Amino acid sequence: MADTEITLGRYLWERIHQVGVDTIFGCPGDFNLQFLDAVFQVEGLKWVGNQNELNAAYAADGYSRIKGVPGCIVTTHGVGELSALNGIAGSASERVKSIHVVGQTTRAMQKAHMMIHHSIGNKPDHQIYNRASKEIRVAAAELWDVETAPKEIDHVIRECFIQSGPVYIFLPLDLSAEKVPRSLLDTPIDVDPKIDQSAQEEATKAIISAISSAKHPILLVDTLVKRFGASTEARELATKLQVPVFSANMGKGVVDETDENYIGVWNGEISAPGVKEEAKKNDLVITLGYLPADTNTAGFSRRISGESVHINPFDVEVKGKSYPNTSLKNLLSALIAALPSTPQHSIAKTSLPPLRAPKDKDATDITQSSLWPSIQSYLRPHDVIISETGTSTFGLCDTPFPAHTRFEAQIYYGSIGWATAATLGSGIAHREMGQPGRTLLFTGDGSMAMTIQEIGTMIKAGLKNVLFLVNNEGYTIERLIWGAREAYNDIVPTNYAHLLPLFRHPSPETSYHFAKTKTELDAVLAKPEVKDPQHLQLVEIVVPKLDTSWRLASTLASRGKEVQEYLTSEGFVDTYGGWGLDAEGESAGAGVSWK
Amino acid sequence: MADTEITLGRYLWERIHQVGVDTIFGCPGDFNLQFLDAVFQVEGLKWVGNQNELNAAYAADGYSRIKGVPGCIVTTHGVGELSALNGIAGSASERVKSIHVVGQTTRAMQKAHMMIHHSIGNKPDHQIYNRASKEIRVAAAELWDVETAPKEIDHVIRECFIQSGPVYIFLPLDLSAEKVPRSLLDTPIDVDPKIDQSAQEEATKAIISAISSAKHPILLVDTLVKRFGASTEARELATKLQVPVFSANMGKGVVDETDENYIGVWNGEISAPGVKEEAKKNDLVITLGYLPADTNTAGFSRRISGESVHINPFDVEVKGKSYPNTSLKNLLSALIAALPSTPQHSIAKTSLPPLRAPKDKDATDITQSSLWPSIQSYLRPHDVIISETGTSTFGLCDTPFPAHTRFEAQIYYGSIGWATAATLGSGIAHREMGQPGRTLLFTGDGSMAMTIQEIGTMIKAGLKNVLFLVNNEGYTIERLIWGAREAYNDIVPTNYAHLLPLFRHPSPETSYHFAKTKTELDAVLAKPEVKDPQHLQLVEIVVPKLDTSWRLASTLASRGKEVQEYLTSEGFVDTYGGWGLDAEGESAGAGVSWK
Repeated sequence: MADTEITLGRYLWERIHQVGVDTIFGCPGDFNLQFLDAVFQVEGLKWVGNQNELNAAYAADGYSRIKGVPGCIVTTHGVGELSALNGIAGSASERVKSIHVVGQTTRAMQKAHMMIHHSIGNKPDHQIYNRASKEIRVAAAELWDVETAPKEIDHVIRECFIQSGPVYIFLPLDLSAEKVPRSLLDTPIDVDPKIDQSAQEEATKAIISAISSAKHPILLVDTLVKRFGASTEARELATKLQVPVFSANMGKGVVDETDENYIGVWNGEISAPGVKEEAKKNDLVITLGYLPADTNTAGFSRRISGESVHINPFDVEVKGKSYPNTSLKNLLSALIAALPSTPQHSIAKTSLPPLRAPKDKDATDITQSSLWPSIQSYLRPHDVIISETGTSTFGLCDTPFPAHTRFEAQIYYGSIGWATAATLGSGIAHREMGQPGRTLLFTGDGSMAMTIQEIGTMIKAGLKNVLFLVNNEGYTIERLIWGAREAYNDIVPTNYAHLLPLFRHPSPETSYHFAKTKTELDAVLAKPEVKDPQHLQLVEIVVPKLDTSWRLASTLASRGKEVQEYLTSEGFVDTYGGWGLDAEGESAGAGVSWK
Repeated sequence: MADTEITLGRYLWERIHQVGVDTIFGCPGDFNLQFLDAVFQVEGLKWVGNQNELNAAYAADGYSRIKGVPGCIVTTHGVGELSALNGIAGSASERVKSIHVVGQTTRAMQKAHMMIHHSIGNKPDHQIYNRASKEIRVAAAELWDVETAPKEIDHVIRECFIQSGPVYIFLPLDLSAEKVPRSLLDTPIDVDPKIDQSAQEEATKAIISAISSAKHPILLVDTLVKRFGASTEARELATKLQVPVFSANMGKGVVDETDENYIGVWNGEISAPGVKEEAKKNDLVITLGYLPADTNTAGFSRRISGESVHINPFDVEVKGKSYPNTSLKNLLSALIAALPSTPQHSIAKTSLPPLRAPKDKDATDITQSSLWPSIQSYLRPHDVIISETGTSTFGLCDTPFPAHTRFEAQIYYGSIGWATAATLGSGIAHREMGQPGRTLLFTGDGSMAMTIQEIGTMIKAGLKNVLFLVNNEGYTIERLIWGAREAYNDIVPTNYAHLLPLFRHPSPETSYHFAKTKTELDAVLAKPEVKDPQHLQLVEIVVPKLDTSWRLASTLASRGKEVQEYLTSEGFVDTYGGWGLDAEGESAGAGVSWK
């Protein structure tokens, strides 16, 4: 009869595994050890311990972005839980599914306000840490009673999918050992949103009518499409509509850039030559999963001033009229089905102007203007690219991707250090999915330092990730904003040749690569072990301290003359002259004061 | 006339510098860069940038513990602020003075709920991160108006001292550039507590009366004495009273262990031979700055069941009667002054029993039973010891310290990783104070991994700290609790020979030392560069995975037979036999269920 019951701890992991999670991240602690045992009891569920909890949260975030199911981390009461909070907040900001399981002190300890380690004060309230994350999650199960706990667990797992964001499960250590009926596992958790059919029909009709009456509709694809699992539908819609397709920065890679209707990244006034001109020809913008943050709109300069349709996660807006209670993925399916089978528009595709020649094109050493084209030729279909919110993301924004490229960068939340640890999770997700392609990281030296120990976890996990480290002697993105040569933008000098042997990489000498000149980089990228890695590879690329992609300098320069003068006087590289701004560009910023 | 005004940013740093802070820790970010410039305008104020924000918070905590003034960190809105939160919570838990300056988005951005990077949602409330730390600080200045801002800054700096804990200063970026009168700097901030003279007199009388009527009073010195700046007074009191003096674990080092009345660490039932017997002879316990957490009382087993006087930070309790509104340091001064000039007691000091011989005394390799005696012979007066809450702290608890030793371990909050980063701050404080002695770290491999990049900051800062790394292949303290051989207690295999060169240490080969045998350790500790370091030194000491100090095993074993059986069956080292418990010891725990 014992078999008819399982511990609540086991129930939790079984449920999480049932919805597609195959790896649990986190760190052990006094108040989670016992129920970590149960992770190993679940067939097919693996444990990947992290070097610290913030890294664990980032890794779980990276896992979810690639696999579409929640990333899951376990921490211990207080110390672990709080360390992870910033990583969880990133998931909240960018609507990434994550489940944070916190092993708490026992109920008896909590009731008695015992001065158990990790607490604050002489009569400690053990729930203050729970309250710290209250506004930084979409749901929480504060478990206390074994009778209701399974239902509460199921509920937050559902909410994690429906709302696409972080949820918490607070599990007092003693409760985790109590028993629940095993049969509860037989009913799968419903993770699909409830559909209001009539809302969906009304919205669909309104969208079709708006499209029909437009002469030059365009599609703008953004990140929330991915977060709400609607990438396939977005691509189908693009194919069916046959209208020009643009990406927001954060939406890059959702639709294949090799598709015939794809134009480019419309990043407001700071777009590659010809792209914003093409975009502005529209008389209707249809956005999919739009997230109009400053960093995803070139400082709010992507103005959608004419008619628009916004297909959002939970509602639709058509020419200013709101249709609530819809669901992105289902709405897109319904829309695709309802659209006429032959496209209503036939908009001739204009060729974009040729790429400009950078002023430093003849340099021997690598600069950002040559770096990203080199990377472009290295990329292959099905690669997973994780990029840090520094100069890397600004550079990759102008790099056309092969088909089936997955691209993730934390462009809205922008917590540096994220990318390195997220690459651990993404690499594991990529491997679990058994898909072709490599997992690639692009980050800077300042960012990598924040979470550098997680490279050890990647090595231990046997991942074959290729890590591209753009070494520009500190926080170059901050230097561009302020304090170009100030000490606070310097970091600790680091000799990356010692990084792989520090973490006992199996073949450190042949897996670390260094390039300062273009010739060196070409040679590195052509190496078989970098092209088809059998172990983790680290490629250090040195670029000048005050060099950056035109796009970053230009985004800042568009704030006005004062910034342009700063960039000039400090000696930043002005790749194409005039800070990449056209006559209009000078006032391209949305008039936001950044000071 | 411009000279009569300074920016609010400058005002902030001048004020912080005036109260004794000479170094600011932190990380740059978009919303603090401009006012970081002002750090460099303050004569004598230095900037030490950290590798990430959690490490910065730990470093500031370590700085304050040694210097007695606040540690100060700067982070940026959201991403930086939240990353630091766990470190700040540690300061709250252990009443360490810290000032967390958060550079926030501009007031215009906040009012307009703009989707500025680092935010959450489509109409973001930029204050949600501020609210996350609301219960984890003793005061906050939420600056908004330049007219009131200087007063608010002064207020929280005062509160930081008075309440001894973390305070926050939230500074919108635009506000930091506004001007305030320079003359405001002329009035020093009053950081002394207000004294209720009559409360103090009453309490003093009651204490003296209690002492007079006792035959065998003892003094128990604890950590809050240090936090409230009363170490000198505690020592004076001990000298004047001439009664037996004991330390709590967390109070070790407050009074010199070489003092004639000092007996040892009375850690409840888990004390070195003879210590608890001596302590229990009392008919009155006088505690100073007591913090009775589980980890500071051997699981609540230090029972003060007879008569007692508790001299707490803000009140005094004499034989159950409370005297509120006192202040620890002032109360002690008043008490010392009011005590009769000749001691009222003459209690013969009993010699403690000889130290027990460990079962593994003849081992060739280092074990925990030989490690700490070796360290003891290495210590010198004025050393500053930072110890991690792993096996290190349990080992050092039994290590007698030379005179003027400073000892800090985060025994109540217990966030592993703290010690390594705190050593950065402690080392800088030690150097600023110009005192003799070395700054020493004792930590484990699992803990060091969490914050390992901060060793780079120590090297960059030119610190001569000696880092003792006890390498026992993972989280041994957790193995003792649960999952002795489980994968979740393993960490990433690390080759520490590469750590110093990774961070461009000036002489990595001669500064890294390795010892696995007792002979090797003796040789390492005798090296001139380890004894009198001219650069940072790393000493890796390998001990068996399931080895630990008797004190840790014993603390756990005192929970009962079940735990003892676990320890035995998993093969943990039982240094003295019987898990160091005497007949009473088996029920020494306070009957707390840990499951």
